[in-house]
Amino acid sequence: MLIQSAINYNLEVHILDPDPNAPCKYLSNKFVNGDLKDYDAVYAFGKDCDVISIEIEHVNTEALFQLEKEGKKVFPQPHIIALIQDKRTQKQFYLDQGIPTAPFILTDNKEEVKQNADFLPAVNKLGKEGYDGRGVQMMRTVEDLEKAFDAPGLLEKLIDFDKELAVIVSRNEAGEVKSFPSVECAFHPEHNLVEFLFSPADISAEVDAKARELAEEVIQKLDMVGLLAVELFLTKSGELLVNEIAPRPHNSGHHTIEANFTSQFEQHLRSVMGMPLGETGLRGPAAMINLLGEDGFTGDAIVEGLDEAIMEKGVYLHLYGKKITKPFRKMGHVTLLADDASLLKEKAERIKELIKIKA
Amino acid sequence: MLIQSAINYNLEVHILDPDPNAPCKYLSNKFVNGDLKDYDAVYAFGKDCDVISIEIEHVNTEALFQLEKEGKKVFPQPHIIALIQDKRTQKQFYLDQGIPTAPFILTDNKEEVKQNADFLPAVNKLGKEGYDGRGVQMMRTVEDLEKAFDAPGLLEKLIDFDKELAVIVSRNEAGEVKSFPSVECAFHPEHNLVEFLFSPADISAEVDAKARELAEEVIQKLDMVGLLAVELFLTKSGELLVNEIAPRPHNSGHHTIEANFTSQFEQHLRSVMGMPLGETGLRGPAAMINLLGEDGFTGDAIVEGLDEAIMEKGVYLHLYGKKITKPFRKMGHVTLLADDASLLKEKAERIKELIKIKA
Repeated sequence: MLIQSAINYNLEVHILDPDPNAPCKYLSNKFVNGDLKDYDAVYAFGKDCDVISIEIEHVNTEALFQLEKEGKKVFPQPHIIALIQDKRTQKQFYLDQGIPTAPFILTDNKEEVKQNADFLPAVNKLGKEGYDGRGVQMMRTVEDLEKAFDAPGLLEKLIDFDKELAVIVSRNEAGEVKSFPSVECAFHPEHNLVEFLFSPADISAEVDAKARELAEEVIQKLDMVGLLAVELFLTKSGELLVNEIAPRPHNSGHHTIEANFTSQFEQHLRSVMGMPLGETGLRGPAAMINLLGEDGFTGDAIVEGLDEAIMEKGVYLHLYGKKITKPFRKMGHVTLLADDASLLKEKAERIKELIKIKA
Repeated sequence: MLIQSAINYNLEVHILDPDPNAPCKYLSNKFVNGDLKDYDAVYAFGKDCDVISIEIEHVNTEALFQLEKEGKKVFPQPHIIALIQDKRTQKQFYLDQGIPTAPFILTDNKEEVKQNADFLPAVNKLGKEGYDGRGVQMMRTVEDLEKAFDAPGLLEKLIDFDKELAVIVSRNEAGEVKSFPSVECAFHPEHNLVEFLFSPADISAEVDAKARELAEEVIQKLDMVGLLAVELFLTKSGELLVNEIAPRPHNSGHHTIEANFTSQFEQHLRSVMGMPLGETGLRGPAAMINLLGEDGFTGDAIVEGLDEAIMEKGVYLHLYGKKITKPFRKMGHVTLLADDASLLKEKAERIKELIKIKA
């Protein structure tokens, strides 16, 4: 999706990807198959580029620091990637900077988690390597403590939230900052992955403004250049807490391709390429459905129900070019537009029932 | 732009292009450098594909007929490409099918043109090989006849039109037909290239409906599968005449990427891939500006005024990846959105003055 946007600006895109058959292989000016965690691979790749950015945080930051030292533009900056790679330093950053977040205890191993039974119910998170719901688990009862992660992580107070929101915010080198309207995330009851997203969120203008100010505060305090997704809890008492951040185009901004005046992908490019940021307003109400591989199917992906779904007005399919489906693998998404936000929930549920990724 | 759209559907795109450094070279699963007029090149390329389409009519139709005979899906069908390649057969088709068009006389050479001084003012068109304003010239006076094309062509009565309109229409194998709202084309006073395009056209709902019906009639009478651009004259007496047709995504539909519920590129893919056609309605008023190479500049293209232009809400740049600019070469386009159609003309003129393609 970033490449689709880059094409509009004649940008020459080079890709480093650990998958020799990555979907973007045939869409880039230069494709390098290599390990993102390998210093030499990342350094050699970056030497050839003018501006270096990332789509996943699990990357060798030492190589990025070196490239930055040698005068390359690395956005987001390596110190931000390093901070975000570890949920422990991420949480500590919120605390140090006075950014509201759920109370937490840093834990080094399983034993330390078990010593905090009085902190339950809580969420046990691995410091590093979590992604798409992995490395995160619920600790509701003392029995749950038995499955605690036995590695550096944290225990975060379970927030009895009213809604989960997300704000995409960006900042360019000139210091210009722009946030997108808050979106509302509806998680799958079991799999800890966003199932639906609604834009605008069903919140007051005041809460939206407060969420956006908070996201803008985070990117400014990080001194970051690039695009940042800020996930927030809206508590039942109306408080906003920063949950997690991701310094790149994010699932919670996919709807912006069709729904907003500027897409998050274009905004990311604008921010890292030193261009002025684009208008972030919504053109109309939208929903996003994540297309996950159906449970029970592994193998060559087949999309069922496609034709019926795209017959309807305002239904936009985005498949990610992944040949193999697995249960709950993110295979694509669908954006829905509607004249009235009240129609989106029904439309999202109906279209989700139509499109199934099987094998 | 077609590839940008194809990515959303996981389509594997192979390209045959005469330019070894065509902009799409690094955006396709397979890129073949070859002559589109060469039977062997086109046939060998097509043997490898499931569905074959074109982006320019100047292609070897014999090879396409053979591929069609062997069971390949070739859309638009070769007989339509052959018909359209020659403006003489194209005009004869309108006449035979009762499709309103400007009166014309077929001419075989310069002498025959010169014999028709009493038909002036007229437009002298070459039968074959015309493109982007080439192969078309005005014959206002008897003196003009001296520059008449000395090859098979035609002399078409100059229409004193009120507006030039265009309708993009598509049809799939199942026979489903959908047209986009009429657009209004404003030509550059000298260069016979569209300078601005406005959607919706400033015409009555009746004229829009009539233009769309006419476009639908043309695609049905052609029995064509694919996307067809129908250029029309609206005469001062309110008559609609078909001027020219192009059986592919067209300059007069570029605004649909941002302005309509379905873009012409997605609609083209849907029509040739056997999918249901998408909703064609406008999401809001739009204008399109063609970015032509500035007169007096030839060489490595530089885009001036980009940052200032894209700071504004609803300004969408599309560069075509061409490295070398030449006077009046189509280097890209800009789509503009506005809340109100009455704001578009001023915005289009202002943005056009900002962005200059130089060398």
